[in-house]
Amino acid sequence: MAMRVDGKSFRTIWLGADGQSVCIIDQTRLPHEFVTVELRTVDDVARAIKDMWVRGAPLIGIAAAYGLALALREDASDAAIAAASAQLAATRPTAVNLAWALAKMHRHLQPLPARERAAAAFAEAARLADEDVAICSAMGTHGAALIRDVASRKSGPVNILTHCNAGWLAAVDWGTATAPIYKAQEAGIGMHLFVDETRPRNQGASLTAWELGQQGLAHDVIVDNAGGHLMQHGEIDLVIVGTDRTSATGDVCNKIGTYLKALAAKDNSIPFYVAAPSSSIDFAIADGVADIPIEERSPREVTHISGLAADGRVTSVQVTPQGSPARNPAFDVTPARLVTGLITERGVIAPDRDAIARAFPERVAGATKQLDKVP
Amino acid sequence: MAMRVDGKSFRTIWLGADGQSVCIIDQTRLPHEFVTVELRTVDDVARAIKDMWVRGAPLIGIAAAYGLALALREDASDAAIAAASAQLAATRPTAVNLAWALAKMHRHLQPLPARERAAAAFAEAARLADEDVAICSAMGTHGAALIRDVASRKSGPVNILTHCNAGWLAAVDWGTATAPIYKAQEAGIGMHLFVDETRPRNQGASLTAWELGQQGLAHDVIVDNAGGHLMQHGEIDLVIVGTDRTSATGDVCNKIGTYLKALAAKDNSIPFYVAAPSSSIDFAIADGVADIPIEERSPREVTHISGLAADGRVTSVQVTPQGSPARNPAFDVTPARLVTGLITERGVIAPDRDAIARAFPERVAGATKQLDKVP
Repeated sequence: MAMRVDGKSFRTIWLGADGQSVCIIDQTRLPHEFVTVELRTVDDVARAIKDMWVRGAPLIGIAAAYGLALALREDASDAAIAAASAQLAATRPTAVNLAWALAKMHRHLQPLPARERAAAAFAEAARLADEDVAICSAMGTHGAALIRDVASRKSGPVNILTHCNAGWLAAVDWGTATAPIYKAQEAGIGMHLFVDETRPRNQGASLTAWELGQQGLAHDVIVDNAGGHLMQHGEIDLVIVGTDRTSATGDVCNKIGTYLKALAAKDNSIPFYVAAPSSSIDFAIADGVADIPIEERSPREVTHISGLAADGRVTSVQVTPQGSPARNPAFDVTPARLVTGLITERGVIAPDRDAIARAFPERVAGATKQLDKVP
Repeated sequence: MAMRVDGKSFRTIWLGADGQSVCIIDQTRLPHEFVTVELRTVDDVARAIKDMWVRGAPLIGIAAAYGLALALREDASDAAIAAASAQLAATRPTAVNLAWALAKMHRHLQPLPARERAAAAFAEAARLADEDVAICSAMGTHGAALIRDVASRKSGPVNILTHCNAGWLAAVDWGTATAPIYKAQEAGIGMHLFVDETRPRNQGASLTAWELGQQGLAHDVIVDNAGGHLMQHGEIDLVIVGTDRTSATGDVCNKIGTYLKALAAKDNSIPFYVAAPSSSIDFAIADGVADIPIEERSPREVTHISGLAADGRVTSVQVTPQGSPARNPAFDVTPARLVTGLITERGVIAPDRDAIARAFPERVAGATKQLDKVP
């Protein structure tokens, strides 16, 4: 299965018909317009990541891999690999997948003669994309069991809260936090989703709500303020969110506001799960709150909102008074003590150093070295 | 002192020049337009409250009192008092001040002959307005001491987070949560405010930011998601919010999302104070989460946002996909265990039944009876 748009199957990134370009969905145009874009150069890809035409930790990694492949078509020297990798790595500072994907590409391409590198890069990017699909699918299977378990203990649909978009649109297919939901849907389990709108960029309202609608899943959009109240009143059975970077100890860096929902889930004894592919785990970081760098984005994302005006045009409006400044940290860190479990491609594991190391022993060994190797 | 708009002193509600009408600021037009409106009938006032031209628990109470006075100009019979009170009480279900103000008016007017009631109602409404100013001023004095205390233990400005608008615009003057801030400003204490935008109606971004700007206070608007992260990183010294209804046990019903900030403050050992005039205390309620009715407002407040477009016009835009429904609970309840203290007109008190009863013994006695008397 793949996700559907107007009934037609799509991945979020695919090779152009000429095999020399990469196609994406311009996610900044959703939910009001569905527009695909062809990227032909590493500059195109860097811009697409930086301006969030593509976003979501897994998708950013795959886009960067393809970006490197596009760069190598023009110059496949060691210096060119280093320059393109540095350019791509600088586009977004928080998600570890970017560094992870570039390191994988680097390891794969380095031993090859320059003339073979471009073709090998495209092949490796495609392999990483397929691997991402397999990882999301496996997370979906493990996570769906959690949903099935809740369903077996109640009547009526399972009410699930999610924050931001850790959906199909954030990955190549299935999504991370949504994979369990789509797998549970395939298995016929009744669900209803609460979708945090996720200010300031509204990825919940504009992306998650859109993709849930496309897949035919019942949902309500709520403001980010509402989740705690709904939890207090038994309206939420389960929280599943994604992660942009997970510490070796299970701290979770995800879209700003995730921490507040984790606190509320804890206060109301509601399970709070994080869909954390191993690619999101940064084995070099032990204290997420202290050590994960948090991207601070433009204040304009706070002061202005865009949406569909009555005249049918996408219009940006200012919601703050003239002269009121804004701050815009884009992520926060949820300490492991607030996380019920990490849904990984190898099963649902406890958010602690031992469980993570046991699940991914090969990553622990090479972790620090691998990160150091990012050019 | 009174609050200033473009340097000119204003209250939020005042008698028209003819003494037969009531003037307000249409707060739905802020921050982009400053428009005052003259209300001539009880229907006008009911609409102004229901459509949130005036909002904020204290101001709603005063507006309702004036609304009753306007009704009595036309018909001062017992039946007319009952009908107008019922109409006004039905406009907003959560804030207890509405019932409180109407009960006070009722007690005052009932014994009078019908021909004296209209004039007496205007006088009593004016007295309640002055009383509200005195109460806010007293809360300001008590609360400013808390800010001074923080200032004495650090260098640089005191960083205060507030949610929604419990400001001058929510009361008659000074505000509730902002009164300590404006009093501290008068005393020369350096402060910086973080203003939660407060989705869905954005009262923080559109009202609090505007009034802080008018009073010359340094501030940053942040999305509602950001407060937890800022607290984790030591950027917030103190939280002060308002309350729409406070239980006899210190639970606080305030704008949706307040509970999430209280959880984050607790998790980071940051003082969380609630400016709670005694008029907000509902002595008939012991369990705020279970027993305070929560207004569910139109989904359109979630799906659409209005702001200033590039063409200078206030424009409403849809932020959700076509066909995605929304839920919109307007308030939540913060359990007393998360509240550091209640800033009342009689001092800062612990959020528990004993402390509240000790501070307002006369209210405990007559409480249930008084609420029952709302026509």
